[in-house]
Amino acid sequence: MKAATYHGPGEIRIEERPEPELEDPKDAIIRVTHTAICGSDLWFYRGEEEHEPGSPVGHEPMGIVEEVGEEVRHVQPGDRVFAPFAISCGECEFCRKGLHTSCVNGGFWGPHGGGGAQAEKLRVPLANGTLVRVPERYADDEETLESLLPLTDVMATGHHAAVSADVGAGDTAVVIGDGAVGLCGVLAAKRLGAERVIAMGHHEDRLDIAQEFGATDVVSARGEEAVEEARALTNGGANHVLECVGAASSLETAAEVVRPGGNVGYVGVPHVESAAFLAPLFYSNASFTGGPAPVRNYAEDLMDDVLQGTLDPSPIFTKTVDLDRVPEGYRAMDEREAVKVMVKLDE
Amino acid sequence: MKAATYHGPGEIRIEERPEPELEDPKDAIIRVTHTAICGSDLWFYRGEEEHEPGSPVGHEPMGIVEEVGEEVRHVQPGDRVFAPFAISCGECEFCRKGLHTSCVNGGFWGPHGGGGAQAEKLRVPLANGTLVRVPERYADDEETLESLLPLTDVMATGHHAAVSADVGAGDTAVVIGDGAVGLCGVLAAKRLGAERVIAMGHHEDRLDIAQEFGATDVVSARGEEAVEEARALTNGGANHVLECVGAASSLETAAEVVRPGGNVGYVGVPHVESAAFLAPLFYSNASFTGGPAPVRNYAEDLMDDVLQGTLDPSPIFTKTVDLDRVPEGYRAMDEREAVKVMVKLDE
Repeated sequence: MKAATYHGPGEIRIEERPEPELEDPKDAIIRVTHTAICGSDLWFYRGEEEHEPGSPVGHEPMGIVEEVGEEVRHVQPGDRVFAPFAISCGECEFCRKGLHTSCVNGGFWGPHGGGGAQAEKLRVPLANGTLVRVPERYADDEETLESLLPLTDVMATGHHAAVSADVGAGDTAVVIGDGAVGLCGVLAAKRLGAERVIAMGHHEDRLDIAQEFGATDVVSARGEEAVEEARALTNGGANHVLECVGAASSLETAAEVVRPGGNVGYVGVPHVESAAFLAPLFYSNASFTGGPAPVRNYAEDLMDDVLQGTLDPSPIFTKTVDLDRVPEGYRAMDEREAVKVMVKLDE
Repeated sequence: MKAATYHGPGEIRIEERPEPELEDPKDAIIRVTHTAICGSDLWFYRGEEEHEPGSPVGHEPMGIVEEVGEEVRHVQPGDRVFAPFAISCGECEFCRKGLHTSCVNGGFWGPHGGGGAQAEKLRVPLANGTLVRVPERYADDEETLESLLPLTDVMATGHHAAVSADVGAGDTAVVIGDGAVGLCGVLAAKRLGAERVIAMGHHEDRLDIAQEFGATDVVSARGEEAVEEARALTNGGANHVLECVGAASSLETAAEVVRPGGNVGYVGVPHVESAAFLAPLFYSNASFTGGPAPVRNYAEDLMDDVLQGTLDPSPIFTKTVDLDRVPEGYRAMDEREAVKVMVKLDE
């Protein structure tokens, strides 16, 4: 089968790899029909994070179940399914607590999953806990599937930022970052009832999507000016701040625009060396909560909204490629030509 | 009057200074009877924090009201009072929210207070909001006063750590740091109902006080070994961690001993350059909450417990000096001869 693999900074290749096989009675094999390229993939693509050369890539799989191990009960061959970026058993202390990213039996794709999602097929460990089944009546509706695909990661991650920032009805929220996660954060804040959502970013086309997603204000300035603008719009800081980047500058912005006693939700894998954000955070007595989104915990609720037509994150996909063109997809995201790239495989 | 003043690292002098006078109708003048030296004073004493040479020091005042401005209603001359390390109006958005350290009208002693608490007299701005009155029947009971004195800062700060770490009945809490704040954190966690309190520190005499204060376990190892020990004691991490130091190493320990989905409360002014604590915190999806303790918000509740005899933080005072011996008090704390030094002035 064909699979995208990493061969050093800037180099993604489509290679022939052995087809995955069931290795455990809890495994399922899926034929991937849709997947995506993630902003977090750019960290290794840009050489800013270690990644084993030759290893498969991708962690946002959707597809059709081909085969299941004998202990798999929740899905069966022919089902349309998707999986979060984290594998989870659904049974341990942390899964039961809704914190599937801390599953004691699971892990992330790659080392634990035996493969990457940017491939024709994928072995899914702990299939009972990991896979989310799309109800049959929507299972072949292409538009619905494209709206569901972001639930594998970015939509649920934006939601986790909003939940971590304690956004509720009538609130004012500031969303830092106009990447796919930030845009989904805007959707999530609106969905949780925020009355006012201020999107902060640097790209006009993305801030346009933010407004389409419900942002009531946008701040496109940089640095101290952006902080001043956001503080002026919120009369001294917002009680709910979604930090959707994970860079030093965005963490500092978050700490400076949060209102004393407010809440920062942060969900971008932190790539930060300096603790400069800590002093303003401390003096504002703001809570700072987040981590890898427990997507599996949120998946059904978010799916309900997508299926009833009240949630549609698919506009974040501004480019679509087939599997052969995955390297082009990485390049487009790296050069910010695309917000997020969908990978569609032949069905 | 005599007052302690700072003259560069390691140098505290007792100098003659002009007596404070009412400058505003909301001011009160108090004659200081008790005060203390704080671990946070050691930052500037050690030259690790900027401090204006010649400026007065101390921020934990207790005393007798001598004179009040015409808008002061809550206290009157002759009252025994104490004040938190922060001045607060009691009327603004943040004071009403219980976040007196973010008071828009107040601030910290020194620049805003026109003086330091390690002095014979002190002008207290915003006296209605700032001062806490000791009920008359206890106002001259020396033992009670010494138990109340830590409420000016460290006891309320330890309490803030416990509140920020969301400690409740039946919980297991880890307290990092065996300084005065950490020891008060142990008391606070027990007071909030923690069933198990694990104190982490490096000084046997202080860990003895922790046990006297209710710690059920102590961890005195350092670095990775301490983390392993705490994780073993909690079967993989505690849901409630009180970070009571503010150093890089203690923040890292906190991030490593918190259970996934748990809560870290941090209250030591962070003196941290590296963001190394952030990755473990992120991957555990732990909340991280804290800041300068809103002492004024907690003062009445904590005082009730002291007055009814169920709370007594006074054993943290392992040395007492008079005003003239304040420089010796700093030295004793700097050299860790004393946990915390009480300063008693003539009445």
